[in-house]
Amino acid sequence: MAHDQAAVREVLEAARAEGRTALTAPEGRRICQAYGISTPGEGVATSAEEAVSIAGEIGLPVVLKIVSPDILHKTEAGGVLVGLADLDAVRAGYDRILASASSYDPEASIDGVQVQAMVGAGHEVIIGAVTDPTFGKVVAFGLGGVLVEVLKDVTFRLAPLSGDDALGMLDDIRAAEVLRGVRGAEAADRGALSNMIERVGALVGDFPEIAEVDLNPVFATSEGATAADVRILLDDDPVAAPARLSREEILAGMNRIFKPRAVAVIGASGETGKIGNSVMRNLINGGYRGHIYPINPKAPEILGLPAYPGIADVPGEVDVAVFAIPAKFVPAALEEAGRKGVAGAIMIPSGFAETGNVEGQQEIVEIARKHGVRMLGPNIYGYYYTPENLCATFCTPYDVKGGVALTSQSGGIGMAILGFSRTTGMGVSAIVGVGNKADVDEDDLLTFFEQDDNTNCVAMHLEDLKDGRGFVEAARRMVARKPVIVLKAGRTAMGARAAGSHTGALAGDDKVYDDILRQAGVVRAPGLNDMLEYARALPLMPAPKGENVVIITGAGGSGVLLSDACVDNGLTLMEIPPDLDEAFRAYIPPFGAAGNPVDITGGEPPSTYENTIRLGLADPRVHALVIGYWHTIVTPPMVFAELVAQVVAEERAKGNDKPVVASLAGDTEVEQACDHLFANGVIAYPYTTEKPVAVLGAKYRWARAAGLLRG
Amino acid sequence: MAHDQAAVREVLEAARAEGRTALTAPEGRRICQAYGISTPGEGVATSAEEAVSIAGEIGLPVVLKIVSPDILHKTEAGGVLVGLADLDAVRAGYDRILASASSYDPEASIDGVQVQAMVGAGHEVIIGAVTDPTFGKVVAFGLGGVLVEVLKDVTFRLAPLSGDDALGMLDDIRAAEVLRGVRGAEAADRGALSNMIERVGALVGDFPEIAEVDLNPVFATSEGATAADVRILLDDDPVAAPARLSREEILAGMNRIFKPRAVAVIGASGETGKIGNSVMRNLINGGYRGHIYPINPKAPEILGLPAYPGIADVPGEVDVAVFAIPAKFVPAALEEAGRKGVAGAIMIPSGFAETGNVEGQQEIVEIARKHGVRMLGPNIYGYYYTPENLCATFCTPYDVKGGVALTSQSGGIGMAILGFSRTTGMGVSAIVGVGNKADVDEDDLLTFFEQDDNTNCVAMHLEDLKDGRGFVEAARRMVARKPVIVLKAGRTAMGARAAGSHTGALAGDDKVYDDILRQAGVVRAPGLNDMLEYARALPLMPAPKGENVVIITGAGGSGVLLSDACVDNGLTLMEIPPDLDEAFRAYIPPFGAAGNPVDITGGEPPSTYENTIRLGLADPRVHALVIGYWHTIVTPPMVFAELVAQVVAEERAKGNDKPVVASLAGDTEVEQACDHLFANGVIAYPYTTEKPVAVLGAKYRWARAAGLLRG
Repeated sequence: MAHDQAAVREVLEAARAEGRTALTAPEGRRICQAYGISTPGEGVATSAEEAVSIAGEIGLPVVLKIVSPDILHKTEAGGVLVGLADLDAVRAGYDRILASASSYDPEASIDGVQVQAMVGAGHEVIIGAVTDPTFGKVVAFGLGGVLVEVLKDVTFRLAPLSGDDALGMLDDIRAAEVLRGVRGAEAADRGALSNMIERVGALVGDFPEIAEVDLNPVFATSEGATAADVRILLDDDPVAAPARLSREEILAGMNRIFKPRAVAVIGASGETGKIGNSVMRNLINGGYRGHIYPINPKAPEILGLPAYPGIADVPGEVDVAVFAIPAKFVPAALEEAGRKGVAGAIMIPSGFAETGNVEGQQEIVEIARKHGVRMLGPNIYGYYYTPENLCATFCTPYDVKGGVALTSQSGGIGMAILGFSRTTGMGVSAIVGVGNKADVDEDDLLTFFEQDDNTNCVAMHLEDLKDGRGFVEAARRMVARKPVIVLKAGRTAMGARAAGSHTGALAGDDKVYDDILRQAGVVRAPGLNDMLEYARALPLMPAPKGENVVIITGAGGSGVLLSDACVDNGLTLMEIPPDLDEAFRAYIPPFGAAGNPVDITGGEPPSTYENTIRLGLADPRVHALVIGYWHTIVTPPMVFAELVAQVVAEERAKGNDKPVVASLAGDTEVEQACDHLFANGVIAYPYTTEKPVAVLGAKYRWARAAGLLRG
Repeated sequence: MAHDQAAVREVLEAARAEGRTALTAPEGRRICQAYGISTPGEGVATSAEEAVSIAGEIGLPVVLKIVSPDILHKTEAGGVLVGLADLDAVRAGYDRILASASSYDPEASIDGVQVQAMVGAGHEVIIGAVTDPTFGKVVAFGLGGVLVEVLKDVTFRLAPLSGDDALGMLDDIRAAEVLRGVRGAEAADRGALSNMIERVGALVGDFPEIAEVDLNPVFATSEGATAADVRILLDDDPVAAPARLSREEILAGMNRIFKPRAVAVIGASGETGKIGNSVMRNLINGGYRGHIYPINPKAPEILGLPAYPGIADVPGEVDVAVFAIPAKFVPAALEEAGRKGVAGAIMIPSGFAETGNVEGQQEIVEIARKHGVRMLGPNIYGYYYTPENLCATFCTPYDVKGGVALTSQSGGIGMAILGFSRTTGMGVSAIVGVGNKADVDEDDLLTFFEQDDNTNCVAMHLEDLKDGRGFVEAARRMVARKPVIVLKAGRTAMGARAAGSHTGALAGDDKVYDDILRQAGVVRAPGLNDMLEYARALPLMPAPKGENVVIITGAGGSGVLLSDACVDNGLTLMEIPPDLDEAFRAYIPPFGAAGNPVDITGGEPPSTYENTIRLGLADPRVHALVIGYWHTIVTPPMVFAELVAQVVAEERAKGNDKPVVASLAGDTEVEQACDHLFANGVIAYPYTTEKPVAVLGAKYRWARAAGLLRG
């Protein structure tokens, strides 16, 4: 795809020379031509006779449009006439447009009238690009017309993008079916459309000063696509891409922060109730085995450890300095820590940007940067890294080691993570507060966790991203190996965006986040509790090897609800092949139902659960099981739980390792049964048919993003 | 609205006489005229010259359409020509249509060619009616065209319906804004559209044999609406409306069933593990104070109570007979119970319709009906009614009395209800299994609970409705006073409906259920756990008196998530008036944020929570509070919980009784704090920002349906 960048540059420079940020239609068209984006035949006339002559060349009917740098809303100005079908109409139209425009704005400078071949057959779509504050250049695609503007059926991708990604956009709108041709309409030329999207992506990728592009409408027939109207807006001062450290630089810092040989606590205290006391006690009681250096100018020792007046006085090397002092003392102490050569400053203190003290925050960022110190926070509870028994927080130690790393932007959410983890016994590798994210952010943490063998899943609460593209890159690398779960808060607070284009008006913050996080392979959690449950369950489940989900249930009523939940979560209920159906039938009562759900009916003994579950686990065509249990006297909850745990373990030992989730309906004994199942790698919940399936759905979303289910 | 029923009857009888179930276009048009539904000027021509003459009368351009009872799909048959703009084209078109039609189906009987004024300006909508298997006649409204057929943006109501209900349908589609005129398009004439919907509703209400009506497209301009195409399908054997008992008859039976003076257990047993033993023990241990009569031909006494060989041998009157015997013995025992004059037969045994034994079920239905016995089940766990300490089930007694009555169609779901209730200490008035619903169904139970002062909320799990209209009527009566929560299982299993019309094709089962349950004022729960949580929380909350919701949070991070949840649940975040904003600001730190959420920030003492919460409760402009708590040393969880419970109680005593829900983020102590709050009428959940708001949203949905929030 050869692009004529020089031609684009010439147009942009001319506009800039005139101090314009909106290109005229002919300028837009020239840029489209330079990037191979097809537009209707046209020319600019400066007299009625010239208009007639152009119309004669490009063919009737034509559209006339005013060309003026001062008139942005051409229709309002009476500057557009459509469907002119003979040359007399063209002649009269030219004069009418000029008259309307000059009455609309007598001061407007008029460059002429654009004469354009009228296109209007086929599907009307919109293709555009905007500059998103988080993600930079993104392209947009949607169906044009009134309905889609009302229903906001549009999809976004990072620009530039591949042809395959562009093609994927065509299927990513709700009304995708329309483009394939319904009710006898012809299908759109998908190649031409995706090609045009790709070219728009390349254009804004090549020219950061192009702020917005609107090709609206684009008419797509079965034989091509033409952009009937082009609007391009410039930004004369485009935001530069944020500076980034290399992966090696990030890891050098993160490795010392998460696996420190020595931690200093600046503001360590012997006095209960002080943050500097809590941090000290947590480091000691948590079982951290590196050196702990309390820093306090007034105490010779704290909690039995020798204290130092300043970090400079510590005899050995220090990897991490935890700050537990008021904001006003931080700059001097950070300067000293920087000189000491610490890798990480854990900045617990509040009183920075979150209270309006932006300058104070900028000051410490600069001190940290000067010394090559990575800073976590400020305004955080600290961080946990359980493989090192490291609890550098003012909360309480956490001791259930496991594979999930959780991060939160808010302290309150961090406390919810801690409480939930503790009450469910969730196996955790790390809990990290990122707070104001003055330096270390999710991208740095993803880079560390991706290569951290103690972590096999990451869950992140975030309200914004400092560098959306950095996040996407880090997330993509991680997703290829381990799930990334994101709770994005502020979903419904649509950015009040000053929209200069249709595409801009459609680009609500959350829709852009949603599409791009999905494109990055991230599993987005709809709420806090979902994030926590996904985090708890995903690392315990093996990855599915295919899309065939089978429900086995002792209660028909649960089966219906579990089926609903499977559909809601994008799971595929396997069409059971006849031989497998027959095999299931052999185990269930004649009035039970095979098919899917497999309804083993209510009064069955443990052996019926065992036989059917073993069958599902052993048959290689089945890829995941959803079990619905019904509490009965014949198969009490703990009997069921122990049996299922055992069958799953036995089959796993034979290599039949599949995700198994269960919904337990029964009296309170089912709670203990769920605990037993969870502890044995079977994801089980009482009193809900939705949660186990939602968690399985999350695992599938990751597995698809990681490319594990192709072919 | 005068309707010419005689004219309709004449058309229908003519069709019936010819054995046709599809009306021709002219017949459809005649019916429309009789009901005041406007159609374009037209006539039927039986020669090309006649076509020309009609076209001359009604004006050009015209549309020509084949008229044949044998050709349903006119376009496919080449039987439609549009946009004929001169009389020569009409003449040629007539011949072309006849030729196409006879080559499409040489056997087709051709009545002529319809010549119709071409309408096409304005908004294209679809108005129709179908016969739903559950709800009978329902009307449908949607925007026409490709996009809506793809996006299924359509809404349903029971027919007949009022003009107001019809008007409401115009706002109930996702693309409602389109009809109000967007992008310079004119608004549709809402009166004309709602009027047409109302007339279609009246038509199918008056003529049960009209199975489906399709007005598609209808063109709506700012000055009226015209049905351009009419399709009407008949059902020569319409299903009769189900027979219904009067409210008094239902209550007579239900009162004896729920408040029995004597209960007989047919199949009572002294042997542990038998259902007849469990039922006996549960009646006795549950504390039921009426007479209990064990029926068993082989034992003189059971569990210390004198037993009787048959129910006929019982000396006193018996209100309820609980059946705990195999299906095959049921008919004879039921006959005996009927003769004894029991009011209710609690039919626990399985082995009826659910195992394919439809005849056996029909047999016992007839026995019950003959004796005027109301039968619950068969295939159920029984029923609880706590105000009478009545546990007529084979589960275990339930003793937390309260205001919620729960019913389930599935035994498994019933067990989940029991377990959840017990573990959360939910106050329950009744738990009822309806199983196969051979007789007693949700309508009967709603009729009882509506007038039962022990019940102030009903939650129902259902998979289908025997009599959708009966349910809607009973639910509407109840909703005016108490919330009705419904979990409808089988949401995603769209009925494979053989569609004879566009409207029929759009009428997926769940969309019809969803619209009509909403119209009935029912709060639909998206899942099992939601139903249970709504049931637990709704009776504890006072009804809100207005839409102004205020969030007060100690953690900004929770505030963002709580705001998301409010928007998701259709709640209105109050625009805080300046004086109230100032009053909040007086209590919070300068870097906190007033507005809504009110962010009191993290490190605040109990008094800040107290002052701001009291302010929200006392100000009459605030109607509900959502509190976000963040666990800190300064305000520990139980301090917060006790404080909030006390403030809420104090303000309640002053008449400031408002719904208060809370989300607690913190370490595990927050769980106990939530229990304390719940016990004191503050709906509180740990580790989730979604659940408390979802429950508040459910309360609001009910309050709106009950008409409590108008003006």
